[in-house]
Amino acid sequence: MDKVGIIGGTGYTGSELSRLLCTHPDVELAALTSRQNAGKKVSDIHTFLKGYSDIPFTEKISETKDLDMVFVATPHGVAMEEVPRLVEAGIKVIDLSGDYRLHDVKEYSKWYGHEHTDPKNLQDAVYGLPELFREKIKKADIVANPGCYATSVILACAPVMKAGVVDNDITADAKSGTSGAGMVPSPRLHHPFCGESVIPYSVGTHRHTPEIEDAIGMFSGVDADVTMIPQLIPIVRGILSSCYMKLNKEVSDEDISKIYDKQYGKEHFVHYVKEPSIRAVVGSNHAHVSSNVIGSKLVAFGVLDNLVKGASGQAVQCMNLMLGKKETSGIDNPGLGV
Amino acid sequence: MDKVGIIGGTGYTGSELSRLLCTHPDVELAALTSRQNAGKKVSDIHTFLKGYSDIPFTEKISETKDLDMVFVATPHGVAMEEVPRLVEAGIKVIDLSGDYRLHDVKEYSKWYGHEHTDPKNLQDAVYGLPELFREKIKKADIVANPGCYATSVILACAPVMKAGVVDNDITADAKSGTSGAGMVPSPRLHHPFCGESVIPYSVGTHRHTPEIEDAIGMFSGVDADVTMIPQLIPIVRGILSSCYMKLNKEVSDEDISKIYDKQYGKEHFVHYVKEPSIRAVVGSNHAHVSSNVIGSKLVAFGVLDNLVKGASGQAVQCMNLMLGKKETSGIDNPGLGV
Amino acid sequence: MDKVGIIGGTGYTGSELSRLLCTHPDVELAALTSRQNAGKKVSDIHTFLKGYSDIPFTEKISETKDLDMVFVATPHGVAMEEVPRLVEAGIKVIDLSGDYRLHDVKEYSKWYGHEHTDPKNLQDAVYGLPELFREKIKKADIVANPGCYATSVILACAPVMKAGVVDNDITADAKSGTSGAGMVPSPRLHHPFCGESVIPYSVGTHRHTPEIEDAIGMFSGVDADVTMIPQLIPIVRGILSSCYMKLNKEVSDEDISKIYDKQYGKEHFVHYVKEPSIRAVVGSNHAHVSSNVIGSKLVAFGVLDNLVKGASGQAVQCMNLMLGKKETSGIDNPGLGV
Amino acid sequence: MDKVGIIGGTGYTGSELSRLLCTHPDVELAALTSRQNAGKKVSDIHTFLKGYSDIPFTEKISETKDLDMVFVATPHGVAMEEVPRLVEAGIKVIDLSGDYRLHDVKEYSKWYGHEHTDPKNLQDAVYGLPELFREKIKKADIVANPGCYATSVILACAPVMKAGVVDNDITADAKSGTSGAGMVPSPRLHHPFCGESVIPYSVGTHRHTPEIEDAIGMFSGVDADVTMIPQLIPIVRGILSSCYMKLNKEVSDEDISKIYDKQYGKEHFVHYVKEPSIRAVVGSNHAHVSSNVIGSKLVAFGVLDNLVKGASGQAVQCMNLMLGKKETSGIDNPGLGV
Repeated sequence: MDKVGIIGGTGYTGSELSRLLCTHPDVELAALTSRQNAGKKVSDIHTFLKGYSDIPFTEKISETKDLDMVFVATPHGVAMEEVPRLVEAGIKVIDLSGDYRLHDVKEYSKWYGHEHTDPKNLQDAVYGLPELFREKIKKADIVANPGCYATSVILACAPVMKAGVVDNDITADAKSGTSGAGMVPSPRLHHPFCGESVIPYSVGTHRHTPEIEDAIGMFSGVDADVTMIPQLIPIVRGILSSCYMKLNKEVSDEDISKIYDKQYGKEHFVHYVKEPSIRAVVGSNHAHVSSNVIGSKLVAFGVLDNLVKGASGQAVQCMNLMLGKKETSGIDNPGLGV
Repeated sequence: MDKVGIIGGTGYTGSELSRLLCTHPDVELAALTSRQNAGKKVSDIHTFLKGYSDIPFTEKISETKDLDMVFVATPHGVAMEEVPRLVEAGIKVIDLSGDYRLHDVKEYSKWYGHEHTDPKNLQDAVYGLPELFREKIKKADIVANPGCYATSVILACAPVMKAGVVDNDITADAKSGTSGAGMVPSPRLHHPFCGESVIPYSVGTHRHTPEIEDAIGMFSGVDADVTMIPQLIPIVRGILSSCYMKLNKEVSDEDISKIYDKQYGKEHFVHYVKEPSIRAVVGSNHAHVSSNVIGSKLVAFGVLDNLVKGASGQAVQCMNLMLGKKETSGIDNPGLGV
Repeated sequence: MDKVGIIGGTGYTGSELSRLLCTHPDVELAALTSRQNAGKKVSDIHTFLKGYSDIPFTEKISETKDLDMVFVATPHGVAMEEVPRLVEAGIKVIDLSGDYRLHDVKEYSKWYGHEHTDPKNLQDAVYGLPELFREKIKKADIVANPGCYATSVILACAPVMKAGVVDNDITADAKSGTSGAGMVPSPRLHHPFCGESVIPYSVGTHRHTPEIEDAIGMFSGVDADVTMIPQLIPIVRGILSSCYMKLNKEVSDEDISKIYDKQYGKEHFVHYVKEPSIRAVVGSNHAHVSSNVIGSKLVAFGVLDNLVKGASGQAVQCMNLMLGKKETSGIDNPGLGV
Repeated sequence: MDKVGIIGGTGYTGSELSRLLCTHPDVELAALTSRQNAGKKVSDIHTFLKGYSDIPFTEKISETKDLDMVFVATPHGVAMEEVPRLVEAGIKVIDLSGDYRLHDVKEYSKWYGHEHTDPKNLQDAVYGLPELFREKIKKADIVANPGCYATSVILACAPVMKAGVVDNDITADAKSGTSGAGMVPSPRLHHPFCGESVIPYSVGTHRHTPEIEDAIGMFSGVDADVTMIPQLIPIVRGILSSCYMKLNKEVSDEDISKIYDKQYGKEHFVHYVKEPSIRAVVGSNHAHVSSNVIGSKLVAFGVLDNLVKGASGQAVQCMNLMLGKKETSGIDNPGLGV
């Protein structure tokens, strides 16, 4: 039984990690930090975990704990202060923030607005999307867990990019449930404001954009040019990204389906389907991809639960690979369906 | 054309007042205050008013403005600092906060947690529910505009209380849309928290409770004992209060319907209906009341738009009465229906 | 006082027309048909109209009524059976279905799947988008009221198409509230299915596509190539269409804003804004347009209430023009804001 | 590995049973019926089960299958046609419809509107609420799985009824997500109708009423008099029932909490909490109970996921007991939390 810890256990991704890890058959959630909740039990704050975990929040994780793996679920900019000492202590790390997703320090400072203070580990970090980079993840000491929007767009676009049937230009119209925006109340997430609306934000400037380009580049060799328009919709969990690309040859829906089937046919968590459905994957680590040829365009839909396959579930999937467990261990349940 | 002003024009009730007043045929919205937005135009902040009002927010309302009426749409406790000088200046006042709704200073300090600093006007203020206290409102200089929950419960219960067919005990299970909680973001109104939930709060301690008892007492002579359980539901606008009472004699649904018809049959805004509907009244000053006899109990439903009949629309209705306008002026539109 | 009638008064657009017409100062709603509700009063079915209209539903509209205008709010295919005899009787017609929106009978049969039986009037019908075709509408005897998606996309794209700053290719990712799909229950609109989801449908095959191309062509002379992906989101009213185009020259956000300001600066109902908002226009005939330059792409957002500016409100706006009334008469209220 | 089957696998409770059983470690979902989908694979219809179950729907369950347990998830009235032959064949049965919940044939025909055709098994059926009737369930051959509303009200009220601190009168104001109403589209569940509303229905006449009275009677000996007002709210999953009772002695919140702690302190799935939360239990078999003393009244809240603890999860819990498995087997996960 490997021991794992979470730095940043209060927020939504930390809470979701706790939810998944507390019933995981192969690892033990042994430590969990929170500045504001230090001393309290995890189930005092995340009441839905009552009966599943009784460990206390601590202010810091002490290395003496002998942890095999630590998840960093802090805001951007904080992770890179924590990761170096963990790596030095020989602990494997999965970072759920954006700190280790880009490999170029200049690219990082351009999109995140501050310098990267841990360029060495930035270089070594593996992008944690198992369906595309499984073998690398297995050997990684540091995994940068992909962003929620990014995962949905990459899963939808990477196979056709690699197959060379589309131009390198992607317009991703991404719709997200509100839990993707985190647990801190703000005017944009105030129910009377967003409850009956669709709210575009960070139009063309969202930080998941460069990681999509990077990941597609690594996977397909194509220098993708991505425009992403994130939009909040009044659902709690779920992302549906509609990705528009230009076909560079005449192909049928059937041709395209073969490309996706080849890529995902044997995957446990990613399914190429006729009609994508948020409800089919909500509460699970599963994702849907579907596509339609419309004249000379291709629209590909990527659908997932932003807190599971879009964050903590995918992190557990990576952990399983890194620790030599069964890849589906602890996250092998279907979506809610309804 | 009478001139009216609003103290506290930024919040939801102030914004809703602006919406209603800017198309009112008989009055002119001439002044509007906001500490944070002083200097900006009202349509810079409430963009939906573009083309309807261009007046600027000011920090204070100067009496030299020669206003005929001022609405006070500030938080509880602030209104009683503003009202005395307005009254002295001979300006009629409608207060949308809770400051003037109770007539007893002790009752006030018990429920609001601080002393009332304007006991004289507290005594004079008229409770602004036109369907029950129309004649008094016409002559009032200060009107305390009823709370949103309170209006829904009072409309549903007062007629049967007065008719003497029920005991004096009321249990009001009140469900409100989130706009009733105001524009300041908070954990309870954070979409991921409330978007797929029902959230009881202030259970048995909500401040609208004593004003319901007072109003029913004034109207019916019955010393009502009210328990109210407010609950947030994930809709933006609308309240449905289910009010449970005990019948003190054997009556039929038809007997009860006669009581309500007698009370509301000639009213323009309050309708006794078979099936109450939030959508039928949303966006309007209309309210629905309905009832069912269940054995020895009576359930009465009160339904309205919390920002219109539950707040700013009712305030305009009171203003019309106080200024000698047609009661329905400026608020005479049906609900959205869908 | 002109007299107007509605053929098809039960559905959502018919109901919304009734809502708007019953308080219209310049016309009288004098007749209203419904097969299933013939004999009942309009307020028996649309209870929110109680106190506003008492006219009965009839099975047919008899020409002896001496109506000045008839709205046809029936399903596609039914309107063209009704319109010829109305036109012959000298009654002006606004058709809210898709029957008269395309001018080419072949195009019609291709998209609607059956022959057009009234080709003469098809040719004469004017496309009822006042901001683009005001003068033609004033003189029209038959107006084809635009589709809800179509209005949102056309308003967002036509000005930049005309200005020649973008290529002729439009990808419109359109999100609609559920009321746009009509009042008949179906699996797709079943709350447990759609309440926490985003549902793409008619991907690339939606019937509003050709009318967008037609209208943009008439207005700008550009042969636009439109791909539209409609998606249902769990709100009741409102559309936000994100329209993606390719810039054909280097332009700034400021350059683009000048184009829109020139087009809409003097319009009462269409506003070029920084941040588009569904809540700002809901319940009103107003629309928002906004835009962002993202590298070599332009995204333009079109936002409106699908039942008002997207259907019945726009129809009333057209009626006002056709009958020589003030264009804003009866529909001159701001959106709800919250 | 015991083999289990489902009669009626298409609807929401059947689909939810499939979801839970396909990952159950101790039983195998071996058969599943559906008239309309016979011949298709379960994952063709319930696409979220892809990768979890490949068995085909059949029209009937043949006894030769050697099943150990059959769940009947058909509409009311159909179950009693299926159950007798299953019982005769020696197969244990859990009926999720209302057919076996009442023990008195007259009571049944009064509430369900038709005669009961299987009075013998009606008498033998055990009410499947494990927290109250665990020992009986273990020995039962037929279990009547409780209704969703009923479970929420019984869990909230039974302990205080038994403790004798309240009168026998219960008013239950029950709010349910829409999935509780089943998968068949209807006007009431049409999103534009219910998406921004609260809809009372079956006021005082809902069929879960007598089963609440029965269950509380069996458990506490008190002849409870229950009034229940079901109300649909626009969430997909979840019930919160606010139950109002009259205290018959002066007690504190602490006194009451002791009663609940005594009853539920050792339970795995039912938790007495300070603030009940639908999100804390959604997606799980857990339930929350909380309470507040308000003067001489007690309000007790019962909260659960209507499809899990309110239906299929509870059925699996009963199955575990009946087949001698660990009670929590296959359903031992926390709620989603967010």
